[in-house]
Amino acid sequence: MRAAVMRNKKLVIDSVADPDPGPGQVLVKTLACGICGSDLHALRYVDTFIDVQKRSGSPFVLDPGRDVVMGHEFCAEILDFGPGTQRTLPIGARVCSMPLTLGPTSLATVGYSNDFPGGYGERMVLTEMLLLPVPEALPTQVAALTEPMAVGMHAVAKAGPIGDDVPLVLGCGPIGLAVIAALKLKGVGPVIAADFSPRRRALAEAIGADIVVDPAATSPYARWEEVAVPPGVDPHSPLALLGLGPQPRPGLIFECVGVPGVLQQILEGAPRQARVVVVGVCMETDRVEPSLGINKELNLQFVLGYTPDEFAATLQALADGRIQASPLVTGTVGIDGIPDAFEALARPEQHAKILAEPWREGGIAAS
Amino acid sequence: MRAAVMRNKKLVIDSVADPDPGPGQVLVKTLACGICGSDLHALRYVDTFIDVQKRSGSPFVLDPGRDVVMGHEFCAEILDFGPGTQRTLPIGARVCSMPLTLGPTSLATVGYSNDFPGGYGERMVLTEMLLLPVPEALPTQVAALTEPMAVGMHAVAKAGPIGDDVPLVLGCGPIGLAVIAALKLKGVGPVIAADFSPRRRALAEAIGADIVVDPAATSPYARWEEVAVPPGVDPHSPLALLGLGPQPRPGLIFECVGVPGVLQQILEGAPRQARVVVVGVCMETDRVEPSLGINKELNLQFVLGYTPDEFAATLQALADGRIQASPLVTGTVGIDGIPDAFEALARPEQHAKILAEPWREGGIAAS
Repeated sequence: MRAAVMRNKKLVIDSVADPDPGPGQVLVKTLACGICGSDLHALRYVDTFIDVQKRSGSPFVLDPGRDVVMGHEFCAEILDFGPGTQRTLPIGARVCSMPLTLGPTSLATVGYSNDFPGGYGERMVLTEMLLLPVPEALPTQVAALTEPMAVGMHAVAKAGPIGDDVPLVLGCGPIGLAVIAALKLKGVGPVIAADFSPRRRALAEAIGADIVVDPAATSPYARWEEVAVPPGVDPHSPLALLGLGPQPRPGLIFECVGVPGVLQQILEGAPRQARVVVVGVCMETDRVEPSLGINKELNLQFVLGYTPDEFAATLQALADGRIQASPLVTGTVGIDGIPDAFEALARPEQHAKILAEPWREGGIAAS
Repeated sequence: MRAAVMRNKKLVIDSVADPDPGPGQVLVKTLACGICGSDLHALRYVDTFIDVQKRSGSPFVLDPGRDVVMGHEFCAEILDFGPGTQRTLPIGARVCSMPLTLGPTSLATVGYSNDFPGGYGERMVLTEMLLLPVPEALPTQVAALTEPMAVGMHAVAKAGPIGDDVPLVLGCGPIGLAVIAALKLKGVGPVIAADFSPRRRALAEAIGADIVVDPAATSPYARWEEVAVPPGVDPHSPLALLGLGPQPRPGLIFECVGVPGVLQQILEGAPRQARVVVVGVCMETDRVEPSLGINKELNLQFVLGYTPDEFAATLQALADGRIQASPLVTGTVGIDGIPDAFEALARPEQHAKILAEPWREGGIAAS
């Protein structure tokens, strides 16, 4: 089959071996597969990526010397069944799935594996027990957003109970947008969202942000304070700082940028007692002042991925329209245009999510 | 009165103005005052200390150009009452107090203030409404441990609910020892404690640690795994890492060291999904790899101080013997020996807690 292949730290279009469904596995055709910031990271920082996986005790360890077909945000169509499958879904059914291939004693991430090609190829092998049928009325392009939107659902769930908190979402790329959608789904608000890009701020509003901030013009933390501090309360007064008297609403910050320096900016800007959910993946060593965290008693929750329940709930929320994610799709691209799409996604003003459609040829087309 | 004064970034013994109790305030004689690692930090890093206080929005901002009498871990005796006091406790009563001086519109930390001298001086002014009487049977030296032990109580409370977690306490200085005591008070265990110093490991056992580790000989994380992983479970197997099947007991790590590099070591060594409570105060900019935190979904809770309830509960636990803290006191010192005691405390093998007794002269005497 044809695929966009990560080979020698470059993306090339080439023919690779067709995947072959093993026991409990299903062969599918990739209908659409979102290009993820993590894939841009993996391509750019492949050695760090692999090193960190190893040092984290992760079972997902790539060999960068062998081909990898990335792509883990997909909607697909069932083509064939491997041995020992239940076949409860028919051939031709559209499906979503967590990007995992489970064997009796093995596990791989579809899209970050030398053995299981991801959605930047024409075909994939998935695990039958993880397949979720895509409801008839849900467009394929929106179904393909299940995976990134599930990351937002998980980040909000890992924040713990959200009461009167005023959330501040830093970075409105796809993950920031997914967090905003998940917050609005929970009825939390007002949600403040910050991004330097006007395009991304407009997307943040489209997906539900109540207030958007351009950090070049306004401090997100100052804007947060305007919303979170009740009239007449001085949050910097000695008594307020001791927890006596009326208090600001709690701070809940989502780091959805993932570049060095952002964590330190958050330690500097966050209100006291804030919870910080770190969703953005910074692949470099970063510099922070822990004493700022101490003085403010901050909490940092690092998050990754989602649970099977969260993944299924996200597909359902997309299907019944409680999450309106279609504005995220800013472009589609045929198989030969995938390397160009990687380049385009490095420029935030241009695109949010580009969906690869490996079954066709063609450059990037705006949605 | 005489006091050990922080002046031009040095500690000197000198005469300073007697404090004068204002409305709602009480004049006390310092009976014993623990020398705290934070004071060593403040003396060594005074400019950073002040800078971080300012940037954290703290109301406690020192002028390093003026005298400061430090000392915030005290037991004292009532000498006199200011105007507008209730006087429910008699002159001569022994008291403990959170080190705060509250005025109608002002707030200061006793011991980190240009205006309110702390326990390294002969006399202090405290806030009457914060005074707690010391029960008759509780020795003055143990009562003076209320403040550092309350830091441990607070750190354990801020960890959130503790179920089957296996706690690992890194660093067995006074704060690590306080955390161990608070964990044992909660019935949590086994508690694993790590310190390079044999003396401190012995103190950790004396205060209740179930297992002690010398990190020079054994990885604390490997020792943790021996305890937390049930027989027959491979926590690094792919399925275990996905949360399927039997799991290790949760990790709960207390950072009680506070020097650069420890946070990164924790990110590297911690088990997946661990909670990390950062109690040690690192005064320098530190380097961390956030991607390790992401891959393991770690939670970092930075903590500071304690609440009034926690402070009072700690005094009560010391009084009724549920916390046996007297082994922490490894020495006492008269007023003229306080600068020497600061030097001695920089060597962990020698001392845990030295109590200053500013009402007398004399060098360090082992307890």
